[in-house]
Amino acid sequence: MRLIADNLRITQKAIEIAVAENDPLPLQAMAKRCEMAGADGIDINSGPLYRDPESRMAFMVEAVQEVTHLPLILDTSNPKALKAGLLACKTPATLNGLSLEPSRLEHILPLAVAHQADLVCYLLYPNGHIPPDSAERLNVAISLYQKCLEAGIEPDRLIFDPVVAPLSWQDGLFQAREVLTVIKTLPELLGFPVRTIAGLSNLTAGARDSFKKHLAEQTYLPMLAASGLSMILMNILNAESVRVARTCSLFTQESIFTWEMVG
Amino acid sequence: MRLIADNLRITQKAIEIAVAENDPLPLQAMAKRCEMAGADGIDINSGPLYRDPESRMAFMVEAVQEVTHLPLILDTSNPKALKAGLLACKTPATLNGLSLEPSRLEHILPLAVAHQADLVCYLLYPNGHIPPDSAERLNVAISLYQKCLEAGIEPDRLIFDPVVAPLSWQDGLFQAREVLTVIKTLPELLGFPVRTIAGLSNLTAGARDSFKKHLAEQTYLPMLAASGLSMILMNILNAESVRVARTCSLFTQESIFTWEMVG
Repeated sequence: MRLIADNLRITQKAIEIAVAENDPLPLQAMAKRCEMAGADGIDINSGPLYRDPESRMAFMVEAVQEVTHLPLILDTSNPKALKAGLLACKTPATLNGLSLEPSRLEHILPLAVAHQADLVCYLLYPNGHIPPDSAERLNVAISLYQKCLEAGIEPDRLIFDPVVAPLSWQDGLFQAREVLTVIKTLPELLGFPVRTIAGLSNLTAGARDSFKKHLAEQTYLPMLAASGLSMILMNILNAESVRVARTCSLFTQESIFTWEMVG
Repeated sequence: MRLIADNLRITQKAIEIAVAENDPLPLQAMAKRCEMAGADGIDINSGPLYRDPESRMAFMVEAVQEVTHLPLILDTSNPKALKAGLLACKTPATLNGLSLEPSRLEHILPLAVAHQADLVCYLLYPNGHIPPDSAERLNVAISLYQKCLEAGIEPDRLIFDPVVAPLSWQDGLFQAREVLTVIKTLPELLGFPVRTIAGLSNLTAGARDSFKKHLAEQTYLPMLAASGLSMILMNILNAESVRVARTCSLFTQESIFTWEMVG
């Protein structure tokens, strides 16, 4: 399981101001902190970027690239920003991401095809809502998978996001279980070793009790790992969660002595 | 996932002395502490009891029963002790347990049949050794299952123990993964919702670094739960691990709103 930092997000005031003022230093400081905390990749969440999407995403990517060689995930619904980010990236970037929303299918899917980029696929309804259970998420996965195949994307470029819902929802615990089921089921359903990603902080969105919040996150994280999750999008500056995530990776990593390699 | 206290074990000096001196108070104090800490059951590990197995196991069971109504698991290789424990138990006890070792098959299996007791089945070779991987453990499970069926035990009385090995072993991480695979695979392999149990403290047996020990246990515990483990045998007086285990149970428990109940 690879650890992806979700810390470089424009909803953080310091990042928002830095982007507005074209000041690379706060972005670079955060990127360095993420790398030192053990991130295997950084998600650049620029938001929709209604103004100057191209130059702002390019600015963010260039700023971060100056201080780290970590793989980057470009996280925005804005296809113009995604394209500018791809062009600015010196290493292959991942697009985050596709869903069944018509505008994303129309603009983001062709971009992934043209640039042979890895692509995060959200298991959401076309209207952007979260499906009520695992069966519905899996139906969405099949539809998305077919559209990607038809567009000419190699299956191993896809990374499915089953969409973690907040525990504060009335059926939050049920949703958490369903996400585990989706991660376990996708490889068998689609017939190849499907990669998956999940956003850990969504689980406790809105929670105020930081003790319970950490307990929930640090318990759910190994459950995601044991279900076969490939990438965890998380607050990489939470040292306790990172220790748990690294321990998960130890438990789940392949070695040359596993039967998978022999068989 | 139910939490079974492994604290009432004769390898603890205070328990050993109490049993030797027929003093119920230390056993009762421990049983009460286990109940207050949130145990769903208590494993009475008497060791082999070479001397007076019947009277000593009966003494332990009676002492514990005076202070708690929690279900008891009788944990010894000595069939005489198991039988005496079953007779002393006011509520149905679980036998812990059976393996392919010839003496256990000969003496413990008929006991479980005669008393219609739940039975823990260790996935060990006939010589008592731990199989090297999940495939071998599953072979053992099939053999044990067949012997139990032939003897007339109902499948839902069986609780399989895939046998957690210490991480300190050269292939300890591999073994930990294989145990998860066994827990995930058994229901599909045997064709019914197979119950499983695992001993958490085995994972860190011999470890001295208590920080790493707790990190390993508290990471592996949710991985066991996510794999479908039914019962965790654990130090119920470790409040942190109990909090993690209870959180696991929240995440995994069925509710009347899950599709399993609807479908």
